[in-house]
Amino acid sequence: MNNPAYLKNALPGVLQLAPYQPGMPLEELQRRLGVKDAIKLASNENPLGASPAVCEMLAATARGELSRYPDGGGFRLKKKLAAYHGVDADCITLGNGSNDLLEFVSRVFLGPGRAALFSQYAFAVYSIATQAQNAEAIVVPALPRDHASMPMGHDLEGFARELRDDVAAVFIANPNNPTGTWLAPEQIEAFLEEVPEQVVVVLDEAYFDYQAPALRTDSRALLSRYPNLLVTRTFSKVYGLASLRVGYGLSHPSLADLLNRVRQPFNNNSLALLAAELALEDQDFVRKSVELNTRELARMTAEVHALGLKTLPSQANFLTIDFGRDASPIHQGLLERGVIVRPMGSYKMPDFIRVSIGTGEENSRFINTLKDILKMSSGA
Amino acid sequence: MNNPAYLKNALPGVLQLAPYQPGMPLEELQRRLGVKDAIKLASNENPLGASPAVCEMLAATARGELSRYPDGGGFRLKKKLAAYHGVDADCITLGNGSNDLLEFVSRVFLGPGRAALFSQYAFAVYSIATQAQNAEAIVVPALPRDHASMPMGHDLEGFARELRDDVAAVFIANPNNPTGTWLAPEQIEAFLEEVPEQVVVVLDEAYFDYQAPALRTDSRALLSRYPNLLVTRTFSKVYGLASLRVGYGLSHPSLADLLNRVRQPFNNNSLALLAAELALEDQDFVRKSVELNTRELARMTAEVHALGLKTLPSQANFLTIDFGRDASPIHQGLLERGVIVRPMGSYKMPDFIRVSIGTGEENSRFINTLKDILKMSSGA
Repeated sequence: MNNPAYLKNALPGVLQLAPYQPGMPLEELQRRLGVKDAIKLASNENPLGASPAVCEMLAATARGELSRYPDGGGFRLKKKLAAYHGVDADCITLGNGSNDLLEFVSRVFLGPGRAALFSQYAFAVYSIATQAQNAEAIVVPALPRDHASMPMGHDLEGFARELRDDVAAVFIANPNNPTGTWLAPEQIEAFLEEVPEQVVVVLDEAYFDYQAPALRTDSRALLSRYPNLLVTRTFSKVYGLASLRVGYGLSHPSLADLLNRVRQPFNNNSLALLAAELALEDQDFVRKSVELNTRELARMTAEVHALGLKTLPSQANFLTIDFGRDASPIHQGLLERGVIVRPMGSYKMPDFIRVSIGTGEENSRFINTLKDILKMSSGA
Repeated sequence: MNNPAYLKNALPGVLQLAPYQPGMPLEELQRRLGVKDAIKLASNENPLGASPAVCEMLAATARGELSRYPDGGGFRLKKKLAAYHGVDADCITLGNGSNDLLEFVSRVFLGPGRAALFSQYAFAVYSIATQAQNAEAIVVPALPRDHASMPMGHDLEGFARELRDDVAAVFIANPNNPTGTWLAPEQIEAFLEEVPEQVVVVLDEAYFDYQAPALRTDSRALLSRYPNLLVTRTFSKVYGLASLRVGYGLSHPSLADLLNRVRQPFNNNSLALLAAELALEDQDFVRKSVELNTRELARMTAEVHALGLKTLPSQANFLTIDFGRDASPIHQGLLERGVIVRPMGSYKMPDFIRVSIGTGEENSRFINTLKDILKMSSGA
C-alpha cells in the first residue's frame, strides 16, 4: 500500500504542494525540547493579547492566548480522536466543519474532465464542491417517492452502474440530509467492493450518532479494508458545536496526507479545537442527546402521521414531511408564527419541509402550530 | 460597470454556482418579519446546546448559542466593517483569516492555463494557493539585498513587465511578510494603471495598521477607481485575534459576489464573528498596540544594529535580521533558550531570522539571548 491507486487521480498541483509552515507553538517547543517558560516571537501576533472587551467575553478561557495562532496541526484534538476511534493520528484530517473535508476532496480529485457521483436529494455541498471545481456531477436518481422501505433513499445499485472511467470521487451520505434515509452496512460494503480503487469514496456520517446501534455501519472496519475510503464526522450535530465549525475525516494516512495539503494551515480556530476536545470527552452528554432525539423523533413522527401526512424514514435528528402539495404556504405560516423550519425548494422537493428535532417543548410548539395552519387552510 | 472585465476570467463552474442556502438564523427572522420569541428547527442542531464542560469554558458568552450554526452572512460584523470603512456591506467578503480570501481568489480565477504574479520573498500562501489550482506562478525577482532604500522589497516595475495575457491574478503584500518592506502609494497607483482590467489585483494589507500614517496607501480611494482591486485585511495582527481566524476583503460588489460563491457557508465561526465585532469597536486597544510596536520596533532595530547585524526595513510588527551567513545555528540556539522566532529557510532566505515585536520584556529577552549566542559563537 505504498502507492495507493487514487494518487494518480490527484491533481498535479496538489501533488507538488508543500504545506505552509506555521510558526512553532509554545506548547510544541515544550513537547520537542522540554523547554518551559519559552516566549514566542514567531508569528507576528499581538503581544498585548486582545481587547479586554473580547477577553471578558471569553473570560474563563484563553485570555492571553486569543492573540496566538491556533495549533495548525490540531495535535491534542487529533490525539483524542485517534484514541476514541482506535486509529493512528495520521489517519485524521481536521476540517472547519465537515464541509471543509468535502471541499478538500473536490480540490484534490476533481477538475475539468473528472466527474463526481452522488445521489439526487443528497446534501447540497456535494454538488457545490463539484461545480466549483468545474467537474461534472453525475446525479444518481434516488429511490422512488413511493418506495416500500426507503423512499427517496440512495440507490447504490444505481451508483454502481454510473461508475464511468472519469469518476474520481463518490459522495454517500449515511444517514442522508435532507431525507434522513440510510443504507444497510451490507449495501455499503457491496458497493465498496465494486468501486475501482483509484476512486475516492466519501462516506459522510454527520448524523451517525443518531442511528440505532443495530443499523450502524462499522466504518472503522471498512477503513482498514478500503484505502480509498474517507469517513467524515462532525461536532456540529450530537456534540452541539455547530457554532464552532469542527469536523474531521478518517482515512488511510496517504489519503489524509493529500487532503491535508489543501487544508488551510489554521482552518480550525483555537476555541473550536479546545471545545471539541472537551465535547469528545463528555460522552454522557452525547448519550443524553441521542436519547432525547430517539424519543422525540418517534413522537413527532407519530403526531405528523396522525395529521394524515407522510414522512420519510429518518435515522437522523430531523424529520422530512411530505405535504403532497407545494409546502411553501405552510413554511411561510410557520415562519410568521415564529417557527423556523427548512423549506426544501432548493433541493427540488417543493412538497417537503424538513423539521429538526428540538426539545419536547419546541416540538410540541411545532406540532400545535402546524395543526393550526392545516386547520385554517382546510376549514374557513 | 455592470459587467466588469474580470468576469471573463472567472472559471465556468464558479460562474454557475448558486451558493448553499443555510437555515434562517433566529435573528434574521426577527429582522425580516419582526417575530420575537421564535424557535429554530431548521438546521439539525442539538436542542440541548453543548456539553456543560464546553459551556463553562465559554461561560460569559453564548451559552445555548454554541449549538447553533453561525450567521453565514456575518450580518452584524459586515455592517460594522462597512461603517468603519465607509463602504457598502456588499463590498465585504468575510474570510476564515485573510488566508481564506487568498484562496477564494485562486479558486475563482486560477486554473490550468492561467498564471498568478507575485514577488520573490512574498507571503508563502500566494504560491500555495496558485499551485493548488494547477496555475502557473510567475515569481518576480525582489529588489536586490543591497538595494539602497528597500532591500528585498517588491519590484512593481518588474511586475508590470510580467503582465502576460494569461495572468489572471496579482498578489501584492504591503507591507510584505516576511520582509517588512512596503510600497509607496504612488507606486501602487502607477502599477494599477498598467494592469489590464480583467486581471484581479490583491493588495494584502494584513500589516496596514502598523504603518506610519504618512506611508499608508488610501486603499479606499483606490477601490472606488479600480473594480479589479481586492484589499484584504485581518483581525489576526493588531486586533489580537489570531486564534479566532477572521479576515476580510474590500472590493467592488461584483468581485465580492464572485468570491462569496466559493466561500463556505459558515467559514467564520460564531465566537470569531462576535469577537471581531467587539475588537473593531475597541480602537483604543489598536492605538495602544501600534504605539508599543512603533516604539519597540525602533528599539529592537537599534539594538540589532548595535550588534553589527543588518535588518530589512520594516513597517510591520516584526523585524527581519540578516546574519550574513546561515542563521540556523542561531535559530536553534534561540529555541534551546526558550525563544521561538521564525527561521527563513522555507522562504529561501537561510541567512535571515524573522522576529516578531513582543512586549518590552520579551524583546529584551530576545536581544539578551541573541547577544549570548553571538558571544559564544565568536569567542571560545
